[in-house]
Amino acid sequence: MARNRLKAEDLHTTLQELTGWSKTDGREAMSKTFKFKDFNAAFGFMTRTALVAEKMDHHPEWFNVYNRVEVTLATHDADGITELDIAMARAMDHFAALER
Amino acid sequence: MARNRLKAEDLHTTLQELTGWSKTDGREAMSKTFKFKDFNAAFGFMTRTALVAEKMDHHPEWFNVYNRVEVTLATHDADGITELDIAMARAMDHFAALER
Repeated sequence: MARNRLKAEDLHTTLQELTGWSKTDGREAMSKTFKFKDFNAAFGFMTRTALVAEKMDHHPEWFNVYNRVEVTLATHDADGITELDIAMARAMDHFAALER
Repeated sequence: MARNRLKAEDLHTTLQELTGWSKTDGREAMSKTFKFKDFNAAFGFMTRTALVAEKMDHHPEWFNVYNRVEVTLATHDADGITELDIAMARAMDHFAALER
């Protein structure tokens, strides 16, 4: 998967297609806050994501407290957002939907 | 386990007994940053902690990126640090040691 930084125009279009993801303030990254029913659901989501992250060799930055998970995605090598981050965002949205 | 806030003196003594834990800046909480070999070890540590957190019904605040886990512990009900946080800190230190 392309590790090239997305062009601003492509990024704008892609973020509009996704739900709840936005450009991170002051960084070339994208963020979303997920809320779940409880810690069990939040950590279930994190565990599913962790397995995919290892497989992709692409890891999120995330903060968790109880039922909330704040995620930031960026591709370090590219110093910005790449297709890898978009794929991870889509996977996380899919896993979050399973916990509803 | 006591959900009463630790007295300043007891907290001071207990933090001295623990390794790497310190009072969180500007909050009645305690923090430590754990570093592991890789994401596998970091998330293994988080998973072990998650299981104990559910059992204790006491959950950490934590931030993870790749091999680093930044933890903050506090007892919301008590608006400060209690024996629950100390027990969680000891459990986390134990789990971290397993990943070395």
